[in-house]
Parts: sequence; C-alpha cells; structure tokens
Amino acid sequence: MIKVVKIGGNVIDNPAALAQFLDDFAALQGPKILVHGGGKEATRLSGAMGIETTMINGRRVTDGATLEVVTMVYAGLINKRIVSGLQARGVNALGLTGADGRAIVSHRRPAAPVDYGFVGDIDSVNRELIESLLGRQIVPVFCAITCDAAGQLLNSNADSVAGAVALCAASIGETELHFCFDKQGVLLDIDDPKSIVEEINESKFAELKSQGVVHSGMLPKIENALSVCRQGVNSVFIEAGVGDTYAPRTRVRL
Amino acid sequence: MIKVVKIGGNVIDNPAALAQFLDDFAALQGPKILVHGGGKEATRLSGAMGIETTMINGRRVTDGATLEVVTMVYAGLINKRIVSGLQARGVNALGLTGADGRAIVSHRRPAAPVDYGFVGDIDSVNRELIESLLGRQIVPVFCAITCDAAGQLLNSNADSVAGAVALCAASIGETELHFCFDKQGVLLDIDDPKSIVEEINESKFAELKSQGVVHSGMLPKIENALSVCRQGVNSVFIEAGVGDTYAPRTRVRL
Repeated sequence: MIKVVKIGGNVIDNPAALAQFLDDFAALQGPKILVHGGGKEATRLSGAMGIETTMINGRRVTDGATLEVVTMVYAGLINKRIVSGLQARGVNALGLTGADGRAIVSHRRPAAPVDYGFVGDIDSVNRELIESLLGRQIVPVFCAITCDAAGQLLNSNADSVAGAVALCAASIGETELHFCFDKQGVLLDIDDPKSIVEEINESKFAELKSQGVVHSGMLPKIENALSVCRQGVNSVFIEAGVGDTYAPRTRVRL
Repeated sequence: MIKVVKIGGNVIDNPAALAQFLDDFAALQGPKILVHGGGKEATRLSGAMGIETTMINGRRVTDGATLEVVTMVYAGLINKRIVSGLQARGVNALGLTGADGRAIVSHRRPAAPVDYGFVGDIDSVNRELIESLLGRQIVPVFCAITCDAAGQLLNSNADSVAGAVALCAASIGETELHFCFDKQGVLLDIDDPKSIVEEINESKFAELKSQGVVHSGMLPKIENALSVCRQGVNSVFIEAGVGDTYAPRTRVRL
C-alpha cells in the first residue's frame, strides 16, 4: 500500500507538532510520499520584505514578488526542514517542486473571474519519476509549487497536489491518501471530538449533506476525497495524524 | 564525457547573464550537472529581515537565522529559478541540496580556529543517486546546502561542492569540470584579457607560482583544479562561460 500524506499549516507552524508528525511518518512502513502546505512563514516573510499579502476567498493572490517569497519559503525553508528532519530519522527523503524532474505540470489559472496571479491548476504528475524514486526506497516530499509546460513556476493548492499525487500513485499500486489537519476527522458537532463520523461513502455523504450536519468547510474536502476514490485511490483518511491507527478518524471510500 | 559546470554570483545576480548561461548550458550535449553558488540575494534578504551578515576571510558566518536565509535563497529561490529556466529550455533539471536523497553528506567544520557556524565540509557524494539520475537523462542542479549524517543542514562552499560532485562523476565516466567566473580564464595580467594562460599542468603551475605572475586569489583555484585532476577528473576549465568552446579559456590537466 502506497501512503500519500498531506500536512498543512497547523503542523508546519508548530515545531513540536512537526517533530511528532515526522516521528510518526518515519515509522510508517512501505512506500510513502509526503505533501506539505505552506503555513504562516510566507506571510511573515512577505511582511518583513514589505510585500503586501492579498487573500481572496482564503487563497493567496500570487504576484511576481509573492511567487518569489513562496518559492523561498515552501521549496526552500519548509521543504528542506522536512527533508532534513526525515533524514535525521533515517528516512531517505528527496524534496521536489513540480519543476524538478517535470514532477507536476500545471497551467496558470485563467485571470477571470478572479485573477489569482501565478496560481497553477494541475494537469499531470510524472508517474515514471515517482515510480523510480519509490522503487529506490526514496521518499518524495512535495511542496505545492508546480510548473507549467513553458517552465513558469506556479503556486498550487497543497490539497490538490496531494490528490493528484495520490491518483498518480494509484496507477502504480494500491494507495491510501491521508489528510492530516487540526481535527481528528469529520465531526457532527465541531466542539465534540466524540462526534466523529468514522466511515463516509457516497450514500453516507448524501445523508450528511441532506441533514446539513457537517460543517460547510468540510463538504468540499469530502467531495474531493470521494472523487479521488472514484478515480482509483482505495481510501482517503481525514485525521489528526498518522501515528496511531487506532485513534478515531474518518475514512472515506466508495 | 560528463560535464560538471559551476556558476557563481556574477552569473546568478545578473538576469541577462543567467539567461545566456542557461541557453549555453541547455545546448551542451551529453550527461551534465550544474552546481550554483549564492550571489547577493542572501545578503539582501538578511538585511530585509534584520539579520546581520558577518564575513570572515570572505566567507559567510552561518548562524541559525542565516542558515534559514541561505536555505530559502539557495535551495528555494535560486535553485528553482535555474531548474524552471532549464525546463523552459527543454532540459529535464532536478534541483538538489545535499539532504535530498542523501546526495551530499558533510560534517560541520570545527569551531576552532574560526567558528563559521553551520558550515559543512564535504565527506561524500551519493554516486548511486547521481548515476541513476544521469541514466534517466535528468540533469541534477545542486545548490551548496549540504547535510550531515544526523540530518543537520549545513552551508558549504560551492566550488567545493562542484569539485566533490566532479570527483563522484569521474567514478561513473570521463568527466570535465567547468568553473565559470567573471574572467575568461587565468590571466598573467589581470587587466589584459589577451594574457590568458591556455594550458596549466603541474610543471606550468610550479613555473607560474615561482614567477609570482598569477593573481594570488587564483592560486587556490588552480591548486584545487590540479587536485581533482590527480583524483580522476580529466580536465578542469576555468572560463567565462560554456557557450563558445573556441573562446580563449584556461584548461587545467595533468
């Protein structure tokens, strides 16, 4: 089973949480791939450099100066912090942007209706490269910087990178996708960790939607999880971490 | 013939020079590896972030905050600018620090006589990784960030990285090392481009040293070039660029 694990800012911005996550990830057996988001350091660095951060619908608008900042922070600082942290734990990690080895080709999102600047939507993931790295017991570590066919770096959504990489992995072998976030899973009551929904499939999702019981921010995540399952990923886990497989978590599958 | 090419700040800091270099490098036939230095952007970014830059004997003292800056700038900004620039030219480049795939293992330089901080001297280069990338027509692009066996990132000298990578390449096949810098080669008169020394071997070097005609900053470069030749690299070129093989340049060989 190939495990594709995505972590976001809540892990990246907290050194203790990141160390714990890296311990847990290092202990996972078998072929695995890590995808990481950005966290707050890009915003901090932009501030220090006098570059204004503009968000529309929760997404960063990436002008030329911001693209340089996110390339520095995501592909440099955070990616190498994670790669060296995994090496320290005996895991032979290798960091990648979409540009490296043509790992992920994307295209710039059209400027209408909203111009997000240098933002890329993913076209394809390089199966041959990933298969060859996994075959050499190397663990690819992706940041969410991708590259179009003309060599333009683009800022992509880390959840989308994780989904695309998992679909690519599913063409190599059985694949699980793990979204680690700040809750233990999909909750019926956001204030009650015990209200976790442990299994979601198409009909359960329809039921949850019709009841209106799931927090609206969760709906696109589940929708996306079901979509990658329909395309060949075996299971998608929405969970707090990859350390304890007996901890409550949400499993999405067909 | 494997070509290992090293570029420094004079190319990196000048967009037109970098574009020209990438055109020339893309046109080189056969297996090739690029090693790049840092340039002035790390100093600029340190300044913007209020981090003081300390140089001793022309080398950057790398405290923890400076290590983060050079990791961002060298492994993030510059490395991905070069990788994407090569992809734009049809070259399948893949950027690496020493941490990625355990490409280059170094050890922290002792704190005496001078404490340079997180600075690493190179122990070994991962021949298996480089051979496998070259075998897949992938062009490794190294920045000078390396990693010790315990997973600590370290700032290394880019000329030393180039030398170590060339020695590794020489264990795979015939190898040339190219140092691109701001002169056309080793000059007898630093103000006269026509005074270039086209061939240097051990006896020529002894002669130049005894005559005191070569600029003192050049001596360690030539010494280093002869040393890598003694260890198996076929030729070392000291030159302005890799575009025109009929241009005057200095070739060092045994």
